[in-house]
Amino acid sequence: MIIQLNTNCSPAEREQLDQLLKNNNIKMVEIQTQFNHYLVCVLNKEYDIRNIGNLPGVQDVHRVTDSYKLVSRQWKNISTSIDLGDGVVIQEGNFTLMAGPCSIESEEQVERIVNELVKNNVKIMRGGVFKPRSSPYSFRGLGIDGLKMFHAQCKSRGIKIVTEVMQVSQIEEMVDYVDIFQVGARNTQNFNLLDALGSVDVPVMIKRGISGTIDELLQSAEYIFSAGNEKLMLCERGIRTFENVYRNTFDINAIPILKEKSHLPVIADPSHGIGIRKHVDKIALASLAAGADGAIIEMHYEPERAFSDGQQNLNFEEFRELVQKINMLRELI
Amino acid sequence: MIIQLNTNCSPAEREQLDQLLKNNNIKMVEIQTQFNHYLVCVLNKEYDIRNIGNLPGVQDVHRVTDSYKLVSRQWKNISTSIDLGDGVVIQEGNFTLMAGPCSIESEEQVERIVNELVKNNVKIMRGGVFKPRSSPYSFRGLGIDGLKMFHAQCKSRGIKIVTEVMQVSQIEEMVDYVDIFQVGARNTQNFNLLDALGSVDVPVMIKRGISGTIDELLQSAEYIFSAGNEKLMLCERGIRTFENVYRNTFDINAIPILKEKSHLPVIADPSHGIGIRKHVDKIALASLAAGADGAIIEMHYEPERAFSDGQQNLNFEEFRELVQKINMLRELI
Amino acid sequence: MIIQLNTNCSPAEREQLDQLLKNNNIKMVEIQTQFNHYLVCVLNKEYDIRNIGNLPGVQDVHRVTDSYKLVSRQWKNISTSIDLGDGVVIQEGNFTLMAGPCSIESEEQVERIVNELVKNNVKIMRGGVFKPRSSPYSFRGLGIDGLKMFHAQCKSRGIKIVTEVMQVSQIEEMVDYVDIFQVGARNTQNFNLLDALGSVDVPVMIKRGISGTIDELLQSAEYIFSAGNEKLMLCERGIRTFENVYRNTFDINAIPILKEKSHLPVIADPSHGIGIRKHVDKIALASLAAGADGAIIEMHYEPERAFSDGQQNLNFEEFRELVQKINMLRELI
Amino acid sequence: MIIQLNTNCSPAEREQLDQLLKNNNIKMVEIQTQFNHYLVCVLNKEYDIRNIGNLPGVQDVHRVTDSYKLVSRQWKNISTSIDLGDGVVIQEGNFTLMAGPCSIESEEQVERIVNELVKNNVKIMRGGVFKPRSSPYSFRGLGIDGLKMFHAQCKSRGIKIVTEVMQVSQIEEMVDYVDIFQVGARNTQNFNLLDALGSVDVPVMIKRGISGTIDELLQSAEYIFSAGNEKLMLCERGIRTFENVYRNTFDINAIPILKEKSHLPVIADPSHGIGIRKHVDKIALASLAAGADGAIIEMHYEPERAFSDGQQNLNFEEFRELVQKINMLRELI
Repeated sequence: MIIQLNTNCSPAEREQLDQLLKNNNIKMVEIQTQFNHYLVCVLNKEYDIRNIGNLPGVQDVHRVTDSYKLVSRQWKNISTSIDLGDGVVIQEGNFTLMAGPCSIESEEQVERIVNELVKNNVKIMRGGVFKPRSSPYSFRGLGIDGLKMFHAQCKSRGIKIVTEVMQVSQIEEMVDYVDIFQVGARNTQNFNLLDALGSVDVPVMIKRGISGTIDELLQSAEYIFSAGNEKLMLCERGIRTFENVYRNTFDINAIPILKEKSHLPVIADPSHGIGIRKHVDKIALASLAAGADGAIIEMHYEPERAFSDGQQNLNFEEFRELVQKINMLRELI
Repeated sequence: MIIQLNTNCSPAEREQLDQLLKNNNIKMVEIQTQFNHYLVCVLNKEYDIRNIGNLPGVQDVHRVTDSYKLVSRQWKNISTSIDLGDGVVIQEGNFTLMAGPCSIESEEQVERIVNELVKNNVKIMRGGVFKPRSSPYSFRGLGIDGLKMFHAQCKSRGIKIVTEVMQVSQIEEMVDYVDIFQVGARNTQNFNLLDALGSVDVPVMIKRGISGTIDELLQSAEYIFSAGNEKLMLCERGIRTFENVYRNTFDINAIPILKEKSHLPVIADPSHGIGIRKHVDKIALASLAAGADGAIIEMHYEPERAFSDGQQNLNFEEFRELVQKINMLRELI
Repeated sequence: MIIQLNTNCSPAEREQLDQLLKNNNIKMVEIQTQFNHYLVCVLNKEYDIRNIGNLPGVQDVHRVTDSYKLVSRQWKNISTSIDLGDGVVIQEGNFTLMAGPCSIESEEQVERIVNELVKNNVKIMRGGVFKPRSSPYSFRGLGIDGLKMFHAQCKSRGIKIVTEVMQVSQIEEMVDYVDIFQVGARNTQNFNLLDALGSVDVPVMIKRGISGTIDELLQSAEYIFSAGNEKLMLCERGIRTFENVYRNTFDINAIPILKEKSHLPVIADPSHGIGIRKHVDKIALASLAAGADGAIIEMHYEPERAFSDGQQNLNFEEFRELVQKINMLRELI
Repeated sequence: MIIQLNTNCSPAEREQLDQLLKNNNIKMVEIQTQFNHYLVCVLNKEYDIRNIGNLPGVQDVHRVTDSYKLVSRQWKNISTSIDLGDGVVIQEGNFTLMAGPCSIESEEQVERIVNELVKNNVKIMRGGVFKPRSSPYSFRGLGIDGLKMFHAQCKSRGIKIVTEVMQVSQIEEMVDYVDIFQVGARNTQNFNLLDALGSVDVPVMIKRGISGTIDELLQSAEYIFSAGNEKLMLCERGIRTFENVYRNTFDINAIPILKEKSHLPVIADPSHGIGIRKHVDKIALASLAAGADGAIIEMHYEPERAFSDGQQNLNFEEFRELVQKINMLRELI
């Protein structure tokens, strides 16, 4: 059961509610986000929740049977929008593109890609400065200085930034330069990181684990929400299967299922989802057709020379074609 | 290497070709389909295939490095069309719908569904009469008498039939009543069945195995082609993964990859691919967006009472809506 | 519910039983095997099965909640033994080795391997004459003539034969030359083949599907049993996973689970289970430690020259060492 | 290529070596562990490494083609031992048991379990104080105070502690109370954590990811080693597959493969590997038979009342039986 309190719930009203819960042996976890105040309770099935709904100080109350609570659509039927400021809003019915290189490499690289995004009316740029790499000997990104340079260039052109955060200690140094924190597939169940991201007021996009279930993804999102941050997005990026013609197997089923089970926006990552440059557009279009709220695309002016993931980066021409196709299909849908 | 012979290749010309192959120690398998005559050869890399291409009696010659040969696009760049007669053609750019119940149940059932197909201008009806079932105690279909009844009703209304064949001995009794033989996911590597389907002149749609790879599917299709039957379609129906919110995980990546690697039409099976009625439409649309040449959909006037697979059958209203959405999207693409 | 009838159940006794079932609306499937007569019934939970157990003509009655019935240990608690004649018995506590090449290749090959088996006191030889191959262009085995030669040599030396049957039409021609029919991983759900193997009185070893579940394997065994053949063994041969350092992932968990859920013998196939020659012995020993009733091992005097699967065949020296290790561990257990 | 320097390599010798590398355009990463000094180089295939081996100051040099370097057996053929002090050594040929509850719950609980370990001559106790949990609302462990209590009790009885560390900031507070840091399956690719564990001189046991490959596990171990800590163990704990009769599928193949590819000790976790109490013993014995160097077992005096993982905890009687069986099998092997 989720109880949402009125923003002006008085101490006396609260006392009355606590007493009622206590009398009925109902345990609760208290949650304060940037927007609201909730009590998440584990409930005896027979309890009549209208007893609570009728109390003063309570805005509403819902029974949620899912293992995740605050991210469930059982509680909140209206789809969540994420407002990044300056008119950039991620929301249902408005398929949002995010695009950019795998890694931030240089000032010139960022400038050229920003120009291309502006031309195509794309408002959010991706680009990693802290790169999780399987091998300790691989390029691990430009770090915080790279992020500052990335931010300086984007800010002046009205472009928002989505970039990966890998550990708790990075949050503070990154927070002023990031519009969306991305939690990568390898960190989906890095619970300390999730907890810590709950205490900042910056949107978070959380990727499904490499072999993570739908349920695990939503419970990981619940970590962030229950730690205080409602500005959340989910990202499907392909799962690991036995097939090795492609890097990952994009799970198109996850798109409608996540939309059904949660009120959070669902973003597709076709670049990692298939990992083959010439097919990224088909998977992006399929995601849109299946109901995704946006897509994050890897692109680079010279994919062959990218520091990482070159095989799945679109070049500028391919990117423009994709934007056009998406615009046409978005219109229709 | 694939050598395609001229249809009027003379014995002398053939003799000359055989001699050349022999002199170069090239082994070959001779293949005669309903349309053409081929020699599939395993080739030493250094051999110059133009020596063969210039011979009289040879129509063309191609090097094919894939493990499958005649179904590869390396050999035949033009996408294959399958003509079912009466103007029903499965081909690229003409997303073809096949629809109907999981199992043929009764005369009344077939009649009602045929009526619905006619209304929606759908020309191909699915329906099983031999049902592969995990348990020996489950309903196994109406058998050959059910097929005859099914055929009688469809024939009079101009509807083509796609239905599953489970074993070699069924081919002969079924062949006069079937427009497309379906090879089910459990029989994708039933090699004797594949061989036998090579010797009939009826189109075959072969489904990917439950955990079959792309390569295995194409090699299984190669079995049928190399046994003499070029009228082939591939079907993606979802793979088995760790996720159990849905029955199977529809592999959207397989659509563009199969189209890239093979010249055969690619059909999507969203009903088995997600296995949840209310999301079948999204997966069907996604398949179309990703480049599929058609889809096979389970539908029934009363899904709740279907003998099998009720949870993934669309009802008539849902089916009509899907047809409309597909028509709109097909237009755009 | 499984009702086992007395072998001398009289028509009057049977009539009384049928009447009781009818009066209680209990549907039943009648099953006659080479040993016994059973009625498998779907049961209303509240029905008191002692009403049936007390009837004359009924030997015993058990409730079985598993999806499979006659192969379940819920019904038959005593582990099944398979007697191949001449003192060769597959049974619990007597880890049985089967060994031999992937494919039967020649008379000389069989003779040399038979000699080696005799030396090591191994009584069952494996060897394929009908080979399921992913590609139609691969070697498909010596066929029925190869089997006759194989049989002639083994018979004279007291060696029993286990070999794969791929389709219904092969059963009749093979039946006189085979001691154990093997159903391969690709045919685990070839239900017509399973049905047909129910009507012969020859033991059958059924392999788990490439991505088959425990439940599916047991239901496939149920097909054979319910079609009349109780002489059954189960075989774990590894499943397909994302890992590609090895060919398959041997599922050691399946050994104790199959022993818990079914009364049938469980055989391990470490050769396919790991697919790497130098580690086959470790997986064989692990299977024994985990409770398997036997193992089937690929071996060849010259693995490098084997027609198929050379990378996972033991040579004679490696085989002897394995036999010694197994004998020592068997002693201990 | 790995160059190991002599401990007393002089500045002049080092200068000579650096010059040689520079002249040959060989890039290197310098690594200083608690024991040795290495240079890991990416090498042009044609370079003759004997040129380096002959230099003064160089102890030895090896070519390593694996993606991981310092953890590879290509470099170090002798199996690594981990000395925990007080005569407790984890090494090949000495199957080491670690056992204890999933979570540390109370002083009484620790005391009772320590007693049981002492009786069975088991020297290492497991027990979580920081618990990674899918849901934010689950019990997350007693934290650092629990660890201090745990340590106090173990210390006095000569028992070593293995416990999970979840994030960088915990290392410092835990380090004085821990004998082996465990990296859990969800953190196998938490690269910042791995880096940080490289800078402490405490042994680390790293678990394979939930769907992690062999290669990824070894590269993760490489992170720790290359950050300075050679005291490493690998742990196989089961992978996620489509089978849901058991929680995970224990990958027995991984045992011999990890032993082949790496010089590090390999520990089995049968409790998570099958997740079913009554079969934990079979998987433990199988691991030993397959060549594991130890096992970590969950046990509790009242599994039904354990705070977490009760379904896979052995009770004391089951644990004693397992210890006896392991002792007998260890003897044989």
